[in-house]
Order: sequence, then C-alpha cells, then structure tokens
Amino acid sequence: MTPTMIYTGIRVKDMDESIKFYTEVLGMVLVERDQTPQTHGEGATLKSPGSAQVLELNWYSHGSTWGTSYENGSEIDHLAFEVDNLEAWLKELEAKKVKILIRPYEIAGWNEAFVEDPNGIWIEFLQKAGR
Amino acid sequence: MTPTMIYTGIRVKDMDESIKFYTEVLGMVLVERDQTPQTHGEGATLKSPGSAQVLELNWYSHGSTWGTSYENGSEIDHLAFEVDNLEAWLKELEAKKVKILIRPYEIAGWNEAFVEDPNGIWIEFLQKAGR
Repeated sequence: MTPTMIYTGIRVKDMDESIKFYTEVLGMVLVERDQTPQTHGEGATLKSPGSAQVLELNWYSHGSTWGTSYENGSEIDHLAFEVDNLEAWLKELEAKKVKILIRPYEIAGWNEAFVEDPNGIWIEFLQKAGR
Repeated sequence: MTPTMIYTGIRVKDMDESIKFYTEVLGMVLVERDQTPQTHGEGATLKSPGSAQVLELNWYSHGSTWGTSYENGSEIDHLAFEVDNLEAWLKELEAKKVKILIRPYEIAGWNEAFVEDPNGIWIEFLQKAGR
C-alpha cells in the first residue's frame, strides 16, 4: 500500500492570530475551521490561491492532552512561498509590521528571504533569480 | 501581491536515513537531492505518487550556522497521509519495525493513527471511516 501525503499540520499558539497572519498577511484562503472536541481544540485548513499545498493549523486548549507548553524546536525548518517580486513583497510585509529575519540573498538560482509567523515558525519567500 | 505556498521543509538528523524512511517505508518518490554549499548541508525533495504535496528534507552539517543541536519542539504538529486500509497499513509498518505511537481511533469521520519518523516527527495516517 502507498500512502498519499495530504497536508502539513502545524501547531499554533493562538488560532485567531494565526488565521489572521496566514490570510490577511500571506493571502491564504481559509478553507475550513472546526472545533475538535476529541483534542479539546480547534483546527483550520488553508491554501494559497492557485496552490495545491494544504496547511492545517492546530490549536489545543490547556485542558487537552495535546495542550503542552509550546516549545520552538527544529523539526519544522520552514514553510516556503513563491513570490513574483521579493523586494516589493518584503516592503508590503514591513508595512504590516512583520519581522524580517533574513534579507534577500541568492542561493541555487533563487533569491530568498525569511520572516517569522506568530508562532516563531520560519516562513521563506522565494523569487526565481534573474527575473 | 499574493505568495503561493510551494512546499513544507522539515529538518532531518540524517539525510540517508530520512530519505530511506520517506521512500522505502512511506513510498514517496525522491524528486531531487542536492548539496547546498551555502548552508553546508543537503536538501531533498519528495512527493507521494499522485499527490501535489511537496516535502523538502533539510540537513545541515555541524560547521553550518543552521547546524544547531536538533530539538524536538511543537511547531510541526504532524504530516498527514491518507491510506485505503489503515489496519493493513499499520501491519506493513510494524513488519518494517516502525513504532506505532497511537493506535487507530475515530475522529470527525476518519480513522487515524500516528507513527514517528526517524527525527521524532509525528506522521498521521488517515482512512475515511465506514470504508
């Protein structure tokens, strides 16, 4: 049997704040938002317009087995997003008070930069070099 | 401008061992594997057959700025894979000595179970309930 990868689930500290970041700042579309009584929490599913990648946000209340303290580890390296114009995009983010962690540099045919989401997760923006 | 999510990048402790797990155990296809001199590391891109989700593995050498100690945190909640027959699939995994963390239970119309990848990342397998 061969499983089919269907999404990436990240854990968030505050569901409203994270949905606001991924929709209002990153322009993703909220596909679904549900209570999950079994985990005493909430889930939300998001997609970028025109992208097949599926991102799930998971929030757990303190009463939940999953509601442990939120520790920033190293398992998630980054979530990657492509943009047409990296410099212009970073200006938009700065106007929205998003913290830029690493300014654009070129690597393997791409210009890339990193910012942080409200949970401390690194978000990479990529633009093909020479465009 | 609206960015397009293009992949999820996880960090791995050992590239060969992780590629082996994601290809030989989970049946993903290795699309690309590259040295990344800028990060003194390696990258690999994987996809499940028939899935649009893109998973990137990142490995950094100890000499790299990114080569910090590997800490298991909470940002990545899980990576999700759909299967046709969850019980049969878990038997296959057990035959391959994969550790089952949570045995199947039903939640919101799905049967789901969790195992661990070689980096301590939780992998969820889902089967639509009632099939």
